[in-house]
Amino acid sequence: MKYNYLNNLPLDEAKQKLFDHLTSVGFAGRTETVAVTDACGRVIKNAAYAHICSPHYNASAMDGVAVKAEKTFAASERTPVTLTEADYVTVDTGDPLPDGCDAVIMVEDLIDSGDGSYQIISSVYPWQNVRQVGEDICMGDMIAPSGTTLTPALCGALLAGGITEIEVMKRPLVGVIPTGDEIVPPTSDPQKGDIIEFNSTVFKGMLDSFGASVKVYPITPDKKELISAAVETALNECDVVLVSAGSSAGRDDYTSEIIAALGTVLVHGIAVKPGKPAVLGEACGKPVIGLPGYPVSAIVIMDEIVSEVIARYYGKPNPTRTTVKATLAKRIVSSLKYSEYVRVSLGRIGGKLIASPLPRGAGVITSFTKADGVLIVPQNCEGIEAGEEVEIRLYKPLNEIENTLIVTGSHDPLIDEVANFLAEQGAPFRVCSTHVGSMGAIYAVRDGHAHMGGIHLLDTETGEYNKSYVEKYIPGGKAVTVKGVKRVQGLMVAPGNPLGVKAFKDVRNLRYVNRQRGAGTRILCDYLLEQNGLSPEQINGYRNEEFTHTAVAALIAAGNADAGLGIYSAAKMYGLDFIPICDETYEFLIDGKYLDDPMVQAFLDVLYSAEFQKRLAEMGGYEVC
Amino acid sequence: MKYNYLNNLPLDEAKQKLFDHLTSVGFAGRTETVAVTDACGRVIKNAAYAHICSPHYNASAMDGVAVKAEKTFAASERTPVTLTEADYVTVDTGDPLPDGCDAVIMVEDLIDSGDGSYQIISSVYPWQNVRQVGEDICMGDMIAPSGTTLTPALCGALLAGGITEIEVMKRPLVGVIPTGDEIVPPTSDPQKGDIIEFNSTVFKGMLDSFGASVKVYPITPDKKELISAAVETALNECDVVLVSAGSSAGRDDYTSEIIAALGTVLVHGIAVKPGKPAVLGEACGKPVIGLPGYPVSAIVIMDEIVSEVIARYYGKPNPTRTTVKATLAKRIVSSLKYSEYVRVSLGRIGGKLIASPLPRGAGVITSFTKADGVLIVPQNCEGIEAGEEVEIRLYKPLNEIENTLIVTGSHDPLIDEVANFLAEQGAPFRVCSTHVGSMGAIYAVRDGHAHMGGIHLLDTETGEYNKSYVEKYIPGGKAVTVKGVKRVQGLMVAPGNPLGVKAFKDVRNLRYVNRQRGAGTRILCDYLLEQNGLSPEQINGYRNEEFTHTAVAALIAAGNADAGLGIYSAAKMYGLDFIPICDETYEFLIDGKYLDDPMVQAFLDVLYSAEFQKRLAEMGGYEVC
Repeated sequence: MKYNYLNNLPLDEAKQKLFDHLTSVGFAGRTETVAVTDACGRVIKNAAYAHICSPHYNASAMDGVAVKAEKTFAASERTPVTLTEADYVTVDTGDPLPDGCDAVIMVEDLIDSGDGSYQIISSVYPWQNVRQVGEDICMGDMIAPSGTTLTPALCGALLAGGITEIEVMKRPLVGVIPTGDEIVPPTSDPQKGDIIEFNSTVFKGMLDSFGASVKVYPITPDKKELISAAVETALNECDVVLVSAGSSAGRDDYTSEIIAALGTVLVHGIAVKPGKPAVLGEACGKPVIGLPGYPVSAIVIMDEIVSEVIARYYGKPNPTRTTVKATLAKRIVSSLKYSEYVRVSLGRIGGKLIASPLPRGAGVITSFTKADGVLIVPQNCEGIEAGEEVEIRLYKPLNEIENTLIVTGSHDPLIDEVANFLAEQGAPFRVCSTHVGSMGAIYAVRDGHAHMGGIHLLDTETGEYNKSYVEKYIPGGKAVTVKGVKRVQGLMVAPGNPLGVKAFKDVRNLRYVNRQRGAGTRILCDYLLEQNGLSPEQINGYRNEEFTHTAVAALIAAGNADAGLGIYSAAKMYGLDFIPICDETYEFLIDGKYLDDPMVQAFLDVLYSAEFQKRLAEMGGYEVC
Repeated sequence: MKYNYLNNLPLDEAKQKLFDHLTSVGFAGRTETVAVTDACGRVIKNAAYAHICSPHYNASAMDGVAVKAEKTFAASERTPVTLTEADYVTVDTGDPLPDGCDAVIMVEDLIDSGDGSYQIISSVYPWQNVRQVGEDICMGDMIAPSGTTLTPALCGALLAGGITEIEVMKRPLVGVIPTGDEIVPPTSDPQKGDIIEFNSTVFKGMLDSFGASVKVYPITPDKKELISAAVETALNECDVVLVSAGSSAGRDDYTSEIIAALGTVLVHGIAVKPGKPAVLGEACGKPVIGLPGYPVSAIVIMDEIVSEVIARYYGKPNPTRTTVKATLAKRIVSSLKYSEYVRVSLGRIGGKLIASPLPRGAGVITSFTKADGVLIVPQNCEGIEAGEEVEIRLYKPLNEIENTLIVTGSHDPLIDEVANFLAEQGAPFRVCSTHVGSMGAIYAVRDGHAHMGGIHLLDTETGEYNKSYVEKYIPGGKAVTVKGVKRVQGLMVAPGNPLGVKAFKDVRNLRYVNRQRGAGTRILCDYLLEQNGLSPEQINGYRNEEFTHTAVAALIAAGNADAGLGIYSAAKMYGLDFIPICDETYEFLIDGKYLDDPMVQAFLDVLYSAEFQKRLAEMGGYEVC
């Protein structure tokens, strides 16, 4: 079986190799001339100098009368001055100052004599209430240097300076070629083995934010000649070419060979995770980049390299990447083989910005949908401990992140539903929920990493929920529990219960799917095993761990497992049969400091509202405490 | 002369009045259904739930062979296991796991026996190297709550979850009606009294950033019936109507009356500066806003009120406004009559973020082009001292601001030219220059408010430049001067020198235009007056102060003054006659701490480069020191 090993070039060296080469072949952007009225957001080629002054004539700055200032010098409350019709000209704001006048008296300061004359009781000095020529912009002044991205105000200033058209960088056109035999256009009903092509949509959105336009070519199967032909077409039509998938070194990976045949491969394999199997090359003087097929890997390469390719097209320095310091909520272990991009969610709590690592798989696009930023673990670092200060590259404005209610703990779909109700109300904060199990909630609230979290922890000695755990792990009343819901836990099995499962003890003969350590449902499982005289070793699949009720339901529905413990609403969602086992108390553990926090209060207000109870009834398996 | 006085409602009350009323008339956005592939940046109406799992089948996570895991359990370096062709199926990444298999062995871990069989020396556990159903997204999971703005990654997740179309908020259409008899479309050759209509271009750019589309109507003259008809047309075609200019209470200001006739005026006059003469109203269930004609006033109202009108259309909370703490570089005096929006430029120096107030006139669009943020001086505050910590609302990302070389001091067009050379080189920082005169440079560098600044301070006792001033004001060698240019100072007069000016003493009989206190050129003026036995009182226009050489030249060219002191390059730019008076030494004063700063070094490298000397020769009047 063919497999060529990849290089493992450090990212900086890989970029340097690409950019040095692009410079040597003269890669640079083209320009076009556009109306300034349509130029907002565009990048100007050359410095812009004002053609005319603004204002370009002496203009009245007020509604009032224009006068010769010296006529008013004697005016005071004791010695009012009378201005006859010969002494003034009525002007509105913006009117040119009439010849012979050098000041304007505001309408508010005129005492109307009723006969066409006015009295005034204070003087004006020369050029008072006049916008003199060039007050805002002087002809010849530089309005913006070369390479400036035009803001709305800059467009206004250019027009004010008499510039109506301007040479700007053309938006580069980036060709995206999705490849793969198994790739299909977006559909809600894919066949087994079909992979929905969504990477090009992700790239399109990212490229737009980099300032590039996109042409997405049709999906090309894994045939070298076809992909090569598509790359040649794209090289003719576009400024930059991206080949999606096929960038590794397997038997169906052709990107590297194709670029080598058409031009030059500069790098194949970069020491980043995810993102390693990327190809950086050039053909016809244009960058050709082979992106990994896994979406997260591709996004890292887009963010790190393609964004800088576009910056070079514009002749601009690299994109500004805003970073913040944050406290790491959970230990991260990494490898010395690469630098690793760990997506994190962020939230401010007790004055500290807390970074919680998200799932690290290269195929997990949802790790990017939830990411507020990324922690780059350098290649020479094997790991970072919880509680350490780390630098996070932001994906979102910090203020958006500041207003976050952090809910960390046991998974229940109701948390997302509450968040949605809050969003519908236009709440001025967002809810960031992480599923780390009930024990995870205990640790997160204890350590100040979450405002609150869902817990359902069965004390197997007393049969009571939650209380004894909270007393043991967070003594001293620092945290409180507030009522949540009662919900039914049970065994989920295939529709129609084909294996005839009647009670928990029946899992002994089945392929089981379990929950992760620390989950309330895992603790329930262990309790039920003990009650039934079973040991973990007797359970096929005990070590097959999932993080949510829906993930367990999905695997049973897919036939990967025969049974698993979970809540009724998940079973209902997947049309599974459900064997109820117990009612449990799902509560919220809240750090006492935040009990009166408006975000926490708004969350609870929704939870306890009559409207939300209706939603719970629809979902099924819940009972209001 | 008609003039109705305006209200002076605090901003928060004005907004509340508008938004309460809009709620009462049911103002809300409409929706449309779009393809998810085109939905990036759109705001979803309802929560989005996954239709399918992703992956929706068990997929190989690697290139390799699929096996039944239990076949591999015995494998070790001492006891390799042989997999015959019956034991495995060759798979590529993404391929469905064949029936009967539950794990994948990576191609890198296979030892090819050459006869179709492989040896392995380590085992795989069930589901290893398999992306199980739902690994990324589970059917039924909420991908995004109601009101989410779709990011590229979210569009990817929606497609992965089998969602191909989605209901999003329509972009609101905002009608902009420019009004005014004197308003003309953009031109580079306006007649006296013509005002170039650039506000609608500024609004279009701002509205785009708020998420709105714009229809700009033709310029409508100051006729009540015509403006009223335009508003009615816009109300038919748009979701929000903005009337530009005519919002005050003068004889040609009709906006308020027109809105009152068509609907309801809620507010006329707001206690903000600039921005006071705004009208907030409603007609046909739609917001109708009268914007002040002065661009800066209009921008404040756009930013504070129209942005929130658009947020309400989307059902979103108000836009996130990022703020930072900064140290105020210069004292600000404000009034108790209003809250004032003072635009500031920002830069980081010696660990401190320094906010320098920009010109405060309502007509000065360039105060917005240079603004990095705004300091809002509350209504109950009469002023803020230099050095106080203030809160700045940012207009630009903080990282863009962090990398700023602050050049504060004497005006010379060469500073902009150096900045432009740096921009052309792709320098990873920007230059922020403020014209506060040579003494301003001394104070700014002394107080740590600037990295460097231009100075040309004549010691009238020694005839030497700069040295004695620096020694006096910044003793102890904390700051150093480095060579800049020699430049010619002289009197600028109208082309052809119609008044026959021969020497400085001739200004006695002329209308003079002066520079501001603290400017090196002002000090030169005072010195020349003394030398010629003249007193300031004898000079007509001594108190007419401008901040730059080009502003002085512009006023002489416009005929506002007969003569003024300035540098040759400014006279040349305006085609003025020039009577040389002296050569002066223009140097850069640099805080010693920053002499080796890469930004300062890059600035000086450009200044001393042969290419830049050519540019100076083109500008004229300079000599390399």
